[in-house]
Amino acid sequence: MSSPKSITLYTAKVCPYAQRVEITLAEAKADFKAYQIDLANKPEWYAPKVNPASKVPAIAYGGPDVAPENPSPESTKLAESLVLVEFVADLFPQSNILPKDPVLRAQARFFIEVIGSKFIPAYIKFVLRGEGYEDLLAGVAAVQDLLPESGKYAFGDQYTIADVAFTPFFARLKLAAENELGVYQTGQGRAFLDALSSDKYAKFNAYVNHLLERPSFTSTFHEAYLKDVYAKRFVKAQ
Amino acid sequence: MSSPKSITLYTAKVCPYAQRVEITLAEAKADFKAYQIDLANKPEWYAPKVNPASKVPAIAYGGPDVAPENPSPESTKLAESLVLVEFVADLFPQSNILPKDPVLRAQARFFIEVIGSKFIPAYIKFVLRGEGYEDLLAGVAAVQDLLPESGKYAFGDQYTIADVAFTPFFARLKLAAENELGVYQTGQGRAFLDALSSDKYAKFNAYVNHLLERPSFTSTFHEAYLKDVYAKRFVKAQ
Repeated sequence: MSSPKSITLYTAKVCPYAQRVEITLAEAKADFKAYQIDLANKPEWYAPKVNPASKVPAIAYGGPDVAPENPSPESTKLAESLVLVEFVADLFPQSNILPKDPVLRAQARFFIEVIGSKFIPAYIKFVLRGEGYEDLLAGVAAVQDLLPESGKYAFGDQYTIADVAFTPFFARLKLAAENELGVYQTGQGRAFLDALSSDKYAKFNAYVNHLLERPSFTSTFHEAYLKDVYAKRFVKAQ
Repeated sequence: MSSPKSITLYTAKVCPYAQRVEITLAEAKADFKAYQIDLANKPEWYAPKVNPASKVPAIAYGGPDVAPENPSPESTKLAESLVLVEFVADLFPQSNILPKDPVLRAQARFFIEVIGSKFIPAYIKFVLRGEGYEDLLAGVAAVQDLLPESGKYAFGDQYTIADVAFTPFFARLKLAAENELGVYQTGQGRAFLDALSSDKYAKFNAYVNHLLERPSFTSTFHEAYLKDVYAKRFVKAQ
């Protein structure tokens, strides 16, 4: 395969979907330009020239060497976090985040499907709608059911796209719950974390501790920034 | 790569998700056993022994040579239609339904994302909820926007996972609309098809005509059976 062309990533520190791609690029040790999109005040050129859906993440791939805020029509524009994660994994096979074995690869994609159908909706319900954390614990149990008997990650000691897809969401949930930042009532964040600390979820907790230590995650997670954003977003009535 | 092991597909003629996998297996010229699951009356062993979510499609891969209704714990059970489409494409690279180029591959996956977010929900709203076909025409326009200037399929003359993912849904929509089978009022099926026949959608219509002629589709689409099922499901009040 020919060597990868230039990559410009349009991202936002607050966005868990965008962090998936940042983690993947870090795992791939890829050279790329990153451009922060202010999601509350997107630049006028972003939708017409980069992503018609006006969301992050997006990648401009190839084309002439231009400033990110002046994207060339000659570069290929790609969007959707999971599409981009697999794209970067395809460009940089030496990153090893996409298992070579078709069965493991299918299982990794199935793991991501469970994150998308059982964990993320429950996270949104709890943090953004204040609807309780029962579904979130069910999502945790669904993830735990897929974890192996041994190894640090979802597929043993190999860090894969499955882990990439999950980490940014769990990290934001943990930060929100620890600081009672969410539309739920104050105290529910700690109550969720107390429930999660049960022995019943020991395998899950060991797993997420490994995820949160991965350098590709820590180097792309902006905890103080996020906490500040969440604190402004979730101002509590006194 | 070692040669593929035995494949048992759990499927149902009525299910568009399952047909995605049947088309892929046909494109791959794969040997496999197919077992029909009656979705209205699922066998007791199906959820515990094959797919805990109790949905089709699912694949039992490898393990000893057993009857499909007696699945072995030694085979690997895999589920979710898009996971299975990519799995079969990975097992049978000579099928060429997964583009080799990372950019094309990403674009094919993005196409599938648009099908899942813009076409399928609109199809469900129209046929199963009778909520009008405006969103469906918007979905058609979204698909058309992704089509190339020339070539029979979504990526020119190469038939890919993008086409596989779309065809079963469009075919069912067409069959339902032509026969006024849906929860919508009689006449809305024809009205949708009339709107669709506009020159505005000429590129889309040329595309779907090619899709509906593909042998891997025609050999896995059971029109008379489906029409009968739909007629029973959508009995119209007189």
